[in-house]
Parts: sequence; structure tokens; C-alpha cells
Amino acid sequence: MTSSPFPLAPFPLEPGATIGILGGGQLGRMLAMAAARLGFDIVVLTPEADAPASRVAAHTLLAPYDDPVALAELAQRCAVVTFEFENVPAEVVAALHGLGVPTAPGDLALATAQDRVIEKTFFRDQGIATVDFVAIDSADDIRDGLDRLGAPALLKTRREGYDGKGQAWVATPDEARAAFDRLDRVPMILEARAPFVRELSVIAVRARDGTVAAYPLAENTHKGGVLHISVAPAEVDARTQDRAKAIARTTLARLDYVGVAGIELFQLANGDLLVNEFAPRVHNSGHWTLDACEVDQFEQHIRAIAGWPLGPTEPFAHARMENLLGGQVEDWAALAAEPGARLWLYGKREAMPGRKMGHVTRLSRLG
Amino acid sequence: MTSSPFPLAPFPLEPGATIGILGGGQLGRMLAMAAARLGFDIVVLTPEADAPASRVAAHTLLAPYDDPVALAELAQRCAVVTFEFENVPAEVVAALHGLGVPTAPGDLALATAQDRVIEKTFFRDQGIATVDFVAIDSADDIRDGLDRLGAPALLKTRREGYDGKGQAWVATPDEARAAFDRLDRVPMILEARAPFVRELSVIAVRARDGTVAAYPLAENTHKGGVLHISVAPAEVDARTQDRAKAIARTTLARLDYVGVAGIELFQLANGDLLVNEFAPRVHNSGHWTLDACEVDQFEQHIRAIAGWPLGPTEPFAHARMENLLGGQVEDWAALAAEPGARLWLYGKREAMPGRKMGHVTRLSRLG
Repeated sequence: MTSSPFPLAPFPLEPGATIGILGGGQLGRMLAMAAARLGFDIVVLTPEADAPASRVAAHTLLAPYDDPVALAELAQRCAVVTFEFENVPAEVVAALHGLGVPTAPGDLALATAQDRVIEKTFFRDQGIATVDFVAIDSADDIRDGLDRLGAPALLKTRREGYDGKGQAWVATPDEARAAFDRLDRVPMILEARAPFVRELSVIAVRARDGTVAAYPLAENTHKGGVLHISVAPAEVDARTQDRAKAIARTTLARLDYVGVAGIELFQLANGDLLVNEFAPRVHNSGHWTLDACEVDQFEQHIRAIAGWPLGPTEPFAHARMENLLGGQVEDWAALAAEPGARLWLYGKREAMPGRKMGHVTRLSRLG
Repeated sequence: MTSSPFPLAPFPLEPGATIGILGGGQLGRMLAMAAARLGFDIVVLTPEADAPASRVAAHTLLAPYDDPVALAELAQRCAVVTFEFENVPAEVVAALHGLGVPTAPGDLALATAQDRVIEKTFFRDQGIATVDFVAIDSADDIRDGLDRLGAPALLKTRREGYDGKGQAWVATPDEARAAFDRLDRVPMILEARAPFVRELSVIAVRARDGTVAAYPLAENTHKGGVLHISVAPAEVDARTQDRAKAIARTTLARLDYVGVAGIELFQLANGDLLVNEFAPRVHNSGHWTLDACEVDQFEQHIRAIAGWPLGPTEPFAHARMENLLGGQVEDWAALAAEPGARLWLYGKREAMPGRKMGHVTRLSRLG
């Protein structure tokens, strides 16, 4: 594993230091608010004017992510730079390092998360189960893959793609060929259908000193490939909880990770866990921590990247988080009037179908 | 009582609307973060560059409060304007009204809170006890006042002054004369010493539809005239809690108030309550609600002024809030490492003695 080019010297960051965020969406917005709580200033770099995160940040650099002038200013202003999405071009991270500013998480974590074949191979190398998969470089590979994995299987681009974009279920060589063409014949991965009984996720955080902490598991349900509901703490036995935390601990340690990460898991009928996906950032299925924990995932991430000690991860309430997708945000008035509904709205101007516009969390007593 | 020149028409404000805040300090900062949570944008008007609230606001107008160009822009951008301090010049509020933008709280509340004689007279007129007082316009008035109220008594300017500034204890006519000179012979009030056994406060909120809600009382201790510690819910009997809520309800209703207000109370040995001061804004002794309630005082204020329904005011934990004054903020590293310490830092650049730099809240189980 690589060791960081940035020694511990500037850490812990003192209050008043400036933290950079690449990306201006809702994750950046909630990170910026958490940073402000602890006395930090935020600079957001985003190509999007009037971005949700910009409106709560001390300063915004409005430029493409690879704009050299913007990156130079970001490096000059910030003590550390973080990301609200995983598809940061490697050359952007390299440029920031060249300019002398540390990033968190680091390039190994980003490189691992950016390519689905590398990601799954990494987990296997750690002895952590994933769904079966085959790397796909040609239509013939898909035919062979379907033979090996069984049909139907899930064809995904190796890079990019989120919330169900860039993927298709294929059952026959003809379907596979059509999907391969439709996805522009880029390098892909074919994943076996996992016979899972439910979807879980673990939100974990690793501090600069190597300490790892994890929140209790969430149980997630999706709608059209997009997270719909997270319930936490999930009703799982101690073995499942321990196994998920062990997966998180191994993953973050091996990647020399700093910050919060989300790991999506499939649970099989026999209780075993498979890793579905690794997100090197704060995660939608951790939004419940905003209202049910003393220290939420956003503050944990800021604490970790700033070199501060981690906060507690025990919830004081049971939570049910529901995403408000597209037009669902129009329910804001009814939700505002519901005494038990804790509402978060992201300040997005247009409620396009399936777009994450906000979320609502309902708390109840811990069982 | 005056009726608002602004009918209910624009309310409730839709998410995405812009709210103006006069003042750029920590109260404005925490109001801005609460507004962002609900999807609102904030414009701050402040004469202070790099103000704490500016760094979490969508936009800042850097100008004196009475700058006509800045006020015109504020009115043009905002659906409603609020204040983080009570000494807003009446002509500023009048100018905003003239420009067609509603303010909350309204001018009656501000006028009442801005002059200590008017304030105390208002409470007496509602049958709400205050300390005895005499209006002071000359040094002779002080001599007569000391005769009537007994010595020592507290001489304060009628207007301005906060955190113990602009006031002095006087025991003799000579001391009174010297203090009167030192305070520039402006109109003053002389207040009798209240034989109180403890200081309490009630944070209450009134919605646009007239609904009033209050948090449980806090018990406060001061240090050098500045709030030091608030403990909530205070250990008071039901009669005291009910009486304080009744005082809040009467006060906010009579002032046709919209938003959060803090009322400081003295409790006498026999249990009776006297009103010490009325603050027409979010209040330092309500910061504990940030970590111990589902909806804190800042979100309540934004809900109220936006014409939204109020949120719940029941705490889920017992809280002990301590202000970090001046150099105390240097304890940040120890506080960050204390698992039970919830830290809020305000982003102020200079830790001048007595300056409110942040606060820390420690939670425990409700008794």
C-alpha cells in the first residue's frame, strides 16, 4: 500500500482552517455545514453555478474540476481537500498533490472505487466475498460470461455510472450484444445475480491515526436503482453486525483510508454478506445519522480529514430515512406539518424525475 | 397593537425562497445553517467583512445597516428579513417596510425591547412582574431613585448595551453621579436589586398563525455579566414552568410576535418569577436545543418567520451548555477529544477576552 506523501505535520487542523470540497451537490452541502459547526471554512470547486454546496460555503471556485487556475487557487487556500463524489479524475488528485495540498481520501481509495473490476478484485484479495463477476472487453466475453455466471446477469460499465445509470440486465447473447452496443462498448463488468434477501450498508470512518469506527448497519430498499429508504439500526444479529464492521475495518485499513466511506452489502439467505459496492465518501444510506446520532457522518468525515479524534457512533434513536426524489419534494408542506418528520432539503432548483431533492427522517425509540 | 402591513399572502415561503438576516455574528450563522437545512437561501447584511454568518450564507451585502442601496438590494432579494440582534434602528425597519419586504419580528417587538423603560412598562401593563425601576433623565433622578428603590441599585442605559456593558451598580448619590457622567448622561433606568435565588430563561416561539410553543426552562449562570452556563431542562416545579410559559405566551401574543424570543427571569425565594429582560431573537441560553432537541431554536425561528408550522420543543436529553469565552476556545483540541462534548465554534478570527467564540454542550439522560 502507498504511504501518504503528506506527513502528519499540518494535522490536526486548527479551527479557522479552510477545507476544500470538489463537488457542489447535497453531500458537499451537508459536509460544508458540518465543517462550519466545527469552525472551519469551506471552499467548493464546482463547474455548476448556484450549486447546493456553494450556498453554504465561504467561497466557491466556479470552474471545471481539471481547471489548472482553479486547482492552484484551491491548493493555495486549503489545508486539505476532499471529494463529495468518487469519480474525481486521477490527474486532478495528482495536480493537487503536485501543488502541495493533501487530499482525503487518497488516490489508492479513489482508484480502487473508480473501476468496478479493480474494486471487486481488491475485496477478493482481502478475502471479502463479492458477487461473481467477469471483466468484459468484447461482446464475446459476455457470451462466455453468461455461460459461467448464469443468466440473467448485470452488465455495468467498469467506470462512472451511479444510481442505476450505465447498467443493464442481460439474459441472452443477443441482449448482451445490444446492451454492449448501447453502453458504447466501453470496458465493462458482468456480475452474477446475487440471491440476496436484503440490502444492508455500513458507514465507517477512519481517522488519521488509524482508528476506525462504524455506525450500526442500515437496511436499504431501492426504487428504480436509486436508494429509497434506509432503516437503522437494521435488525441484524450480532454476527452480521460484527462481520460488516470487520469488512469495513479491513477495507479502510488496507486502503490507508482517511474519512467516511459507505459499503453496500448483500445479505444471503444463510446470513452471509457480499460486498456490492464501496463508496469512498459520505453516503446516502448514512443520512439517518444527521438526526439520530450525536455526531453524524458529515461531522465524522470532517473530523477524520482534519486529523481530529472521531466522535461517538451510537445512535440515540431508531431512524427511518426516506429520500425525496423528483416531484416527491412537493410534499414539503405536509412534511413540515408532521411533528415527527425531520426534513432536509437540498436547495436544488429543478425537481427532475428521480433527482435527490431532499430527505426526511422519522425517529422512534430504540427497541 | 399594530396589525402587520404584510398580509399572509406570501406565506408559507416555499423552499428555495431567500431570507435576509441583519447581522453577521454567531446567531446569524446558526440561523443560516438552519435555513439551509430547510432549503432556504440566506442573504446577510453586515458591516463586518468576513463575518461568521457570511461564511455559511448564499450571499452577503457588506454595508452599514442603514445603507439605502444595500437595503434596496436586500428587499429585492428577500421574501422576509429577520435580525440577529435587537438594536436594529427603527428607520432601517421602516425602510424595509417601505420597500415592501416584511420583517420578523415586527417593529412593535423591536421598539419594546430597545428601551428598558418601555420594556419594563410593557411587562407591568400585562400584569407581569419585573424588578422595581425608575426612569432616569438627570443626576437628581438617581438620588430620588435610590431613596425609593434602596441601595445599591443598577444603573443602565435605556438603550443599547448587552453582556453587562453600559451598566454600573451604584450605592450613593456620589457614585450615581459619577456613573451617570461615565455613561455620557444618556437616558437611563435605575433598577432595584432583585433578591433572586436563581436565574432562569424561557425560549419561546410564535408562528404566523398565532400558535405559541416553548422549550423547557433553562437555568443560567453568568460570569462578569456574560452568560456562562445553561442547564436544561432546569429543575423547576410544574408551577414555575407553567408560569414562565404563560409569561411567554402573553408577551408574544401582545407584541403580535413572529419568531423565537428569549425571556430572562429571576426566581425569588418564594418561587415567584420576575422578568429581567426580553430578547426579540434567538438567545444564547437556547443553544442547548441544538443538540438536545429534534428541532432547535434556530430552525424554529426559520419555521416561524417562513410561515411554516412549528416543530416539537420536547428535549430528548438533558443538556449542560457552556460558553467558550475568549481564550477558552483554545481548549478545542481537548473538547474535540471528549466523546460526550458537542462542540460549536463560530469561526471568529480573534479571541478577545469575554468574546463568545463557541460553546460546548454535554448531554445526559433525562432524569
